[in-house]
Amino acid sequence: MHRLYYSPGACSLAPHIVLEEIGIPYALELRSARNAEGTSTPEYLALNPKGRVPALAGMPGSAGGATGLLTEAPAILFFLARSHPEARLLPGDPAAEARCLEWMNWLSGTVHGQSFGQIWRAHRFTADPVQHAAIIAKGEENLGGQYAHIEALLADGRDWAVPGQYSIADPFLLVFWLWGQRIGIEMAGHYPAWARLSARILARPAVQRALEQERVSVAAPPA
Amino acid sequence: MHRLYYSPGACSLAPHIVLEEIGIPYALELRSARNAEGTSTPEYLALNPKGRVPALAGMPGSAGGATGLLTEAPAILFFLARSHPEARLLPGDPAAEARCLEWMNWLSGTVHGQSFGQIWRAHRFTADPVQHAAIIAKGEENLGGQYAHIEALLADGRDWAVPGQYSIADPFLLVFWLWGQRIGIEMAGHYPAWARLSARILARPAVQRALEQERVSVAAPPA
Repeated sequence: MHRLYYSPGACSLAPHIVLEEIGIPYALELRSARNAEGTSTPEYLALNPKGRVPALAGMPGSAGGATGLLTEAPAILFFLARSHPEARLLPGDPAAEARCLEWMNWLSGTVHGQSFGQIWRAHRFTADPVQHAAIIAKGEENLGGQYAHIEALLADGRDWAVPGQYSIADPFLLVFWLWGQRIGIEMAGHYPAWARLSARILARPAVQRALEQERVSVAAPPA
Repeated sequence: MHRLYYSPGACSLAPHIVLEEIGIPYALELRSARNAEGTSTPEYLALNPKGRVPALAGMPGSAGGATGLLTEAPAILFFLARSHPEARLLPGDPAAEARCLEWMNWLSGTVHGQSFGQIWRAHRFTADPVQHAAIIAKGEENLGGQYAHIEALLADGRDWAVPGQYSIADPFLLVFWLWGQRIGIEMAGHYPAWARLSARILARPAVQRALEQERVSVAAPPA
């Protein structure tokens, strides 16, 4: 059985949603990203030297979940979708599948790792706390360009992030919609195409179950 | 036919190597990442709003290569491997395939996007040039921890980045070996397991052809 190490509302929400979509039994283990004890205990660092969530235990070949943790949200999402093809969470066509990875790699590395890293974890980018305000400001500026790029992609009338079917890219994109709300961006007003997609994603029972389990409240976008 | 937008020695080297491994005809188009004109011309930004390399034209369904550019190095690598299974550049097992993605997402987002971003592109993280030195220093510190993590993973005696077969994760990892040399790290002395892997990768004819075509010189690791 898989065990997902998560923090409420973190990017671990996406694999949590996908576990609910698939419908297999799994365990959740809270490792809050908001305090260092959650992901920086010696016990957790022994399991996951990266000290982050999400991480997935129970990979084939691992011994009792004590080794072989899978890290990186896009890798976890891809693994869950590929090992449960009956859930149809990944296009079968290699070009469409690559579009899923293109979304996820950019959201993970650029939007999350750089922009939200700067906004929420400025200390990762400089040892001098005096500089944090400028790093946060530049992160917010970069994020504005990235969110505009997301809106431009979605404004072509597509139904889902990768056109044609709901895929693992959609719950991952939802994380950044919710984070935009969390930092006070008036999301629905600025990003109407993204709002429509987020409403479709939020309407899914699996998404609602995951949000309830994590006790994440959502300012609903217009239907 | 595919067209790869590249810059010599940039992370576009990895998909260039993979095109050589597969052995299909392809075109290379230089877009130097070292000067803004290469990737910031109106013509290139119309093709690729991200203004980066690598990008791959000639995706199925795209019109004459003028639309449908695929971006993000891991997505390009994955697409090339999946659409050419005869080249055996990706494990068939979902768990091993996920390990490829885990490597590539972390190398792309954390090692490249954050650490090398700080070292080479500090202006992305603050508008204040006075702060660049501190951002570079923190990037170098973070990179040291990341390179130690790579060495720890490779020191378990594995043959390739994902044990059992050469995969798209290997040429991507080679990029970061070469970048370590480029910024003056004494790579072979500090990272002996990574040196052995890099020597195996560099010995491949496809790798040598790509390096020659890009005119990238390599300080050879010990055999």
